This record gives sequence, C-alpha cells and structure tokens, in this order.
Amino acid sequence: MGSPSGQSHVNRTAEFDLSAYLKQCGRIVDDGLNRLLPPAKTKPKTLHESMRYSIFAGGKRLRPVLCLAAAEACRGDVEAALPLACAVECIHTYSLIHDDLPAMDDDDLRRGNPTNHKVYGEGIAILAGDALLTHAFELAAGCDGWPRYNHQAIVREIASASGSLQLIAGQVADLEGEGAGLSQAGLRYIHERKTSALLCCSVRLGGMSANCTPRELKALTDFGYHVGLAFQVIDDILDVTQSTEKLGKTAGKDQAVDKATYPSIVGMKKSRAIARRLTAKAFEALSSFPKKRAAPLNALAEYLLNRDH
Amino acid sequence: MGSPSGQSHVNRTAEFDLSAYLKQCGRIVDDGLNRLLPPAKTKPKTLHESMRYSIFAGGKRLRPVLCLAAAEACRGDVEAALPLACAVECIHTYSLIHDDLPAMDDDDLRRGNPTNHKVYGEGIAILAGDALLTHAFELAAGCDGWPRYNHQAIVREIASASGSLQLIAGQVADLEGEGAGLSQAGLRYIHERKTSALLCCSVRLGGMSANCTPRELKALTDFGYHVGLAFQVIDDILDVTQSTEKLGKTAGKDQAVDKATYPSIVGMKKSRAIARRLTAKAFEALSSFPKKRAAPLNALAEYLLNRDH
Repeated sequence: MGSPSGQSHVNRTAEFDLSAYLKQCGRIVDDGLNRLLPPAKTKPKTLHESMRYSIFAGGKRLRPVLCLAAAEACRGDVEAALPLACAVECIHTYSLIHDDLPAMDDDDLRRGNPTNHKVYGEGIAILAGDALLTHAFELAAGCDGWPRYNHQAIVREIASASGSLQLIAGQVADLEGEGAGLSQAGLRYIHERKTSALLCCSVRLGGMSANCTPRELKALTDFGYHVGLAFQVIDDILDVTQSTEKLGKTAGKDQAVDKATYPSIVGMKKSRAIARRLTAKAFEALSSFPKKRAAPLNALAEYLLNRDH
Repeated sequence: MGSPSGQSHVNRTAEFDLSAYLKQCGRIVDDGLNRLLPPAKTKPKTLHESMRYSIFAGGKRLRPVLCLAAAEACRGDVEAALPLACAVECIHTYSLIHDDLPAMDDDDLRRGNPTNHKVYGEGIAILAGDALLTHAFELAAGCDGWPRYNHQAIVREIASASGSLQLIAGQVADLEGEGAGLSQAGLRYIHERKTSALLCCSVRLGGMSANCTPRELKALTDFGYHVGLAFQVIDDILDVTQSTEKLGKTAGKDQAVDKATYPSIVGMKKSRAIARRLTAKAFEALSSFPKKRAAPLNALAEYLLNRDH
C-alpha cells in the first residue's frame, strides 16, 4: 500500500536487471550514433566536432533506450528501431543545445561539462543544433517503414513531436512563463510539450518499428505520455533538492529565475505524490502486455521515478 | 556575340512574360504558405507570428518559383509541386533568420524590414527558425511521392541539401572564412553549399514532383547548380554597388566585415564575366528541353543575372 511504486510494481520489474539493460542498450545506441553521424573529421570539422561533443556528452540515452524497449515490448528487434532511436536522440540533443544558449536558459553546464556554446561559441552551437535536427530527418529517410506504418508516418511522427505545436511550443511557453506566476494547468501544458511529446514519440517509434497493433500503439502512447510528465516533475524536484555536482547542470536554477515548477506551485510533498501517480498510470497503460515483454519499459519508468540526478 | 546573355539567349526567353509569371507563381506560393503554415493565432502565438513575420516579409520567392517552373518544364503540375516549393521556402527562411542573429552575421535589416530577432528577440527567433526547419519536413511528409521518386527520396533530398554537408556547411565556412583571406576555390566551396545546394534542391524537387526522367533530373541539377552560383556572385556584386535602401538589407556589409567575395578576390569586371558564364552554363543545361517548356526557367536565370537588388 502507499506508494504506487509499491508491491504490485515490484512484481513487475523485480527480476529484471535494469542496470545491465541500460548498459547494453546504451552501448548499442552509442555505436549507432557513432556510425550514423558524420565523422568528426568531415569538413566542416568544427561543426561535426560540435555535434558530436553534445551527442557524446554522457547523456542518459533515455529516449533511445525507451525506443528500443518499446520495440522489444512489441516483439520487434533492436536493429530496426535503432536509426529511429538515434534520430530521437539527435532531436533531444539539438533541443538542449538551443535551450542552453544565452538567449534562452543561458546555461553554462550540461551533464557536468561546459555547454556547447561555451566550447564552440554561439554561432556554431546554433548551427550544430540545426544540423542535428536536420540529421534526424536524414536518419528517418533511411527507414523503409513497416506494413502498418509507412515511411511518411515515421517522418510525420518525428516532425509533429518536434514541431511548433509540441517540443518547440513547450520551450516557447517555458521562456514566456518564467516568473509569470503560472497555474498548475499552465505548467502541465509546458511539461506535455517540452518533455512528454518527444518521450512519447520515442516509445511510439519503437512500437511502429515493430509493426505494433493499433491497440499496442495506444498503450505505448499512454505510457510515454505519463512517463514524460513524471520525468519532468522529478526534474523540477531534483533542481531544488540536489547539488549542481550531482545533477551535472546548474542546480537551483528554476528558483533563481523565478520559474514556475511543481514544487513551487503545489509544494514538495504533493509533487512527489503526483510523480508517483503519473508513474502508476504509466504501469497501468502497459497492463495488457505480457509481463516479461513490458519489464524493460516498466523498470525504466520506476528508475526515472526514483532517480537522484 | 560577347555576353552569353546575348542573341541565342534572347531567343530563348523573349516571348516569355516573366513579370506576369513571377506575379502568378508568387501568388500561388503565398496562398500555399498561408494555408500550409499554422495560423498566427495558434498557441504559442508569438512563435507562429514570428514564423509568419519572416515567411511573409516580401521575399522574392525565388526558390519556390524555380521549383514550380521545374515541375512545368517536366510536364508536371503546380499543385503537386506546391508543398515541396513551400517546404523549400521554409528552409530558406529559417536559414535567413538564424544567419541574421547577432552570433552569426548580426544583421538588423532583411528585405527592408527589421530582422526577426530585432522584432521578437533572439530566443523566439532561434525557435522560429527551428520550427520552420521542422515544418519543412512536416510538409514533405504530406507528399506521397511519385513512381520514380518515392517519399523517402523527397525527404532525403531536402535533408541532404539543408544538412551539415551542404547548407549548414556553407554557413559555417562563411562564419569561419570572414577575413581569412579565402582563395577563389574556398569561396566557391561556400557558394556551392550556402546558395547553390538549396537552389539546386528546389529545381530537383520540382522535377521529381513531375516524375521526371533521370536525364531530365540531371539537366535540372546542372541548371540549379549554375544558377545558384551565378546568384551568389551577383549578390556579392550588389553588396558593393547598391544602396541599403535598394537591397532591403545592409549594403557594404561584406567589405565592412572583411568578408571574401568575388569582387574582392577577382575584381568587379571578372566577377560580372563569371556570373554571365555561369548563367550561360545554366542555359546550356536545359538545351535538350523543348524551348517553350524551358522558357520560365531560362527567363528566371536571365532575370537573376540582370537584377539590381
């Protein structure tokens, strides 16, 4: 009883070795990215170095791993999902590079390292972001599609999750919302777009690459949506509770710029309860999947809820 | 004799009313963009307003018109080519917004109006560029493809022309080349990528939307490549010879930042000769097309050679 990440959920993931899974998938994704991005020595060198600097800056590979895990959950295989997993990581990395710019969140640190523009200058950082965004579609163009999801569906999925109504809308609202005394609904609007949209897209693409049924796609969508929201609530909490060293990015940033967050609007205790409830909904979304096949996704959701950085 | 835009070329385009053609195509492209971009009132309003501000800032619509004209040259129809023409204009506009940023060329004026970041701030300008780039692929995702060129070929074409080896490579080299005493070959490298790649892509997409033959595609590629290079040489010349008022952007900019240009490297007279020679090569590329079908493309090439802004 109590925590939704309690008994029933322990049964869901107890026998699953997430740490080994993360390591294995992380390696596959790293190899894929290394193979699918232009080599660092390709002209213009500064640009390709800068793209690789941020892509290989020690990110958790959460989105690509979710993509691979979703493919597995639908009996797909990792090889088919990999280019899409890498495409999503390119989109995520571009969005971080641009978000960190002085004109946006003005961050000096990301994953414990200087942000892209601190190393390469703002001009190259903007162009590296542009190039990663474009490269995501080049990767998508390499996928033939699957019987239920043709090539167009894949490109539309990525463009829509990353576009002016989703990922970018979230960043705009975030920029404009700073210090504006947002309501909880306003904050939810930002989180849905800024975080949940691409996370959801990641698991959906994994499912699509496994030619999943419409019913499975719906379940994955619900799962991704709730995990995405929970992820951002936890992010807000960690910004308050953890050190810059632990986070690898500037802690206490939200409060310093008077940014609306779950802790600032509903308090810390309620924020934690919300994150647990959202995670429980993510588990619920996958209830129709065989336990073993859903284990990686469920274990990832649990890990994201309990992470400390 | 003498000028390659002499007798033979007059025959090529004399009976063709380019001014009426530009007006007609311009209207079709404007209507298309208006229909295919999210409405300005769509949330987040600032973002969509900002995207539309630059898209409807009075650009010449050169790339989309070339796309439509190429479709016609291959017996295609305007409706099929229009979404691709609009996609290319989204890419072009995003690249201008980002190029104008203080971290890049730092321009205050574009087409006689304040640049995007001067009106909406740098953060929104970066995001509006990102959103237009993403939207181009959303538009591409709406095309089913054609027997010889499937949907994947279309997406690959756009991603490749806009990516880190072409359009963005050109901007990087331009950024890094300022004041660096570039050779003529170095300058050609920049022009091929920064201008020619997307121009070439525009005419190729037009041909592809008409399901053109491989031979026609090759001819269009040669045409676009040479027109693109000529266009940029003329641009360099106009920067020196025209006023800010006439150009609608800051004149004399290249010299002020010690940027390598054709006039600065080979002198004004030779620059003009090069532009004429490149345009002649563009005409030549289309020599196998029936005169009437090639007339719009040839007239466009001539117009670009002789323009004064």
